[in-house]
Amino acid sequence: MTEKTEKQKMLAAEAYFPSNKQLQADRMNAKTICHHFNQLPPNQFKQGMKVLKELFGRTQSFWIEPQFYCDYGYNIYLGKQFYANHGCVILDGAPVTIGDDVMLAPGVLISTATHPLEAEKRNKGIETAHAITIGNSVWIGMGAKILPGVTIGDNAVIAAGAVVNKSVAANTLVAGVPARLIKLL
Amino acid sequence: MTEKTEKQKMLAAEAYFPSNKQLQADRMNAKTICHHFNQLPPNQFKQGMKVLKELFGRTQSFWIEPQFYCDYGYNIYLGKQFYANHGCVILDGAPVTIGDDVMLAPGVLISTATHPLEAEKRNKGIETAHAITIGNSVWIGMGAKILPGVTIGDNAVIAAGAVVNKSVAANTLVAGVPARLIKLL
Amino acid sequence: MTEKTEKQKMLAAEAYFPSNKQLQADRMNAKTICHHFNQLPPNQFKQGMKVLKELFGRTQSFWIEPQFYCDYGYNIYLGKQFYANHGCVILDGAPVTIGDDVMLAPGVLISTATHPLEAEKRNKGIETAHAITIGNSVWIGMGAKILPGVTIGDNAVIAAGAVVNKSVAANTLVAGVPARLIKLL
Repeated sequence: MTEKTEKQKMLAAEAYFPSNKQLQADRMNAKTICHHFNQLPPNQFKQGMKVLKELFGRTQSFWIEPQFYCDYGYNIYLGKQFYANHGCVILDGAPVTIGDDVMLAPGVLISTATHPLEAEKRNKGIETAHAITIGNSVWIGMGAKILPGVTIGDNAVIAAGAVVNKSVAANTLVAGVPARLIKLL
Repeated sequence: MTEKTEKQKMLAAEAYFPSNKQLQADRMNAKTICHHFNQLPPNQFKQGMKVLKELFGRTQSFWIEPQFYCDYGYNIYLGKQFYANHGCVILDGAPVTIGDDVMLAPGVLISTATHPLEAEKRNKGIETAHAITIGNSVWIGMGAKILPGVTIGDNAVIAAGAVVNKSVAANTLVAGVPARLIKLL
Repeated sequence: MTEKTEKQKMLAAEAYFPSNKQLQADRMNAKTICHHFNQLPPNQFKQGMKVLKELFGRTQSFWIEPQFYCDYGYNIYLGKQFYANHGCVILDGAPVTIGDDVMLAPGVLISTATHPLEAEKRNKGIETAHAITIGNSVWIGMGAKILPGVTIGDNAVIAAGAVVNKSVAANTLVAGVPARLIKLL
């Protein structure tokens, strides 16, 4: 029996060391591609979309405004008609699976990565990544934060500034810090 | 009688399709100018201000730190002595009218654009833009979000992280998600 | 007796004019260096770290992801193993002293600078800067805002989206707007 690599641990939602060489190389690759994308003038954005298309795990039609950053890219799975406005970040140690017709407003931050609450463990450089799933037709408002392990149901609306630390049911509007149910849609 | 163009509908606060060719071209123009501005080194910032001056609907003296992005620019009307710190975004489908001596801290997000809460309508790609008016001597704190249709009265202070989804009276301090009155100034 | 310069007033936590020539030049220098850093492709990030190392008041080992901005740089004192993810801003009119093993998630905003609540005073262009101290092994979550004068104790965890306007005790988890004690660690 061979031991899992750090990457395999990461993808299995087990504790892993992001300082691992392979993972560092993967992030360097993704960040180089994001950098290239962010440097392109808007009239070459189609070129930018091509570049991101090769980076991501799955895409169909999508449009992302700069500045955009992610960690690996290969864990980002987009449905059709995805749109992300300026300044969004997706930390995709675990899969971030996004349905069709999803819109991110400016400054949306999505992270699958978390660290131990105990400082001693945290300082060892360990982290864990929990998959995030966003359903079809979800609209995420300005500056909302989506935390590790969250699932957001179809047609949900996340209000501006919401911090989503628990899963959100389909056909609901949530808002606040932390996000709470505001109404059924 | 001729029908309104999508741009005319946008400016009349009626539902419109941002995918319309004219509006796409307008955004491309504004984003190209923002891109150019954001790429300039700080010792050429005065050049950057000139570039933004031509883009905006009205300016006097102002200073904006990169990275700055907007949608159209021609709907941004600034009073004198406007200052925006790093990472502000203004989505100006409708007019964003800003008085004299207004300061935006880093990461302030302002959007006039909204979408239907019903997923079926939203997926048709329709949106509506509601004007935002910010009075004189308003100070908006770090990472605050200003939502469509809001009016902020003279001398108001918006605390860091506030989500302003209702109009704010003059001479008040508001804070929180959503923003609530904290004290009269 | 000679009067204090504006820079000396700033560093003494007294009211000062940031429009002062020396302070403008200092910010121009820091922002030019940040600009240079932000333009570097990821495979030249080590070069970027060198550039920031010369700017900051104290560094040991650290890693900062772009886009990063600060005001002066010389008031930023980092302990060992500092990490800041994408889109962090530090407005360092007063010292920002950071212990060992501190992590900032994407979009963390830290500001020592504040303005008068009275509009008349504020419009004169005056501000004050209050030192921020962050202990060892502190983890600050996505999009958290750290306000002027705050001290954060060792091992504290600041939840995503928190607005920290009061000091935080060691070994605690705080969350919310404004940040409140959630649990002892």
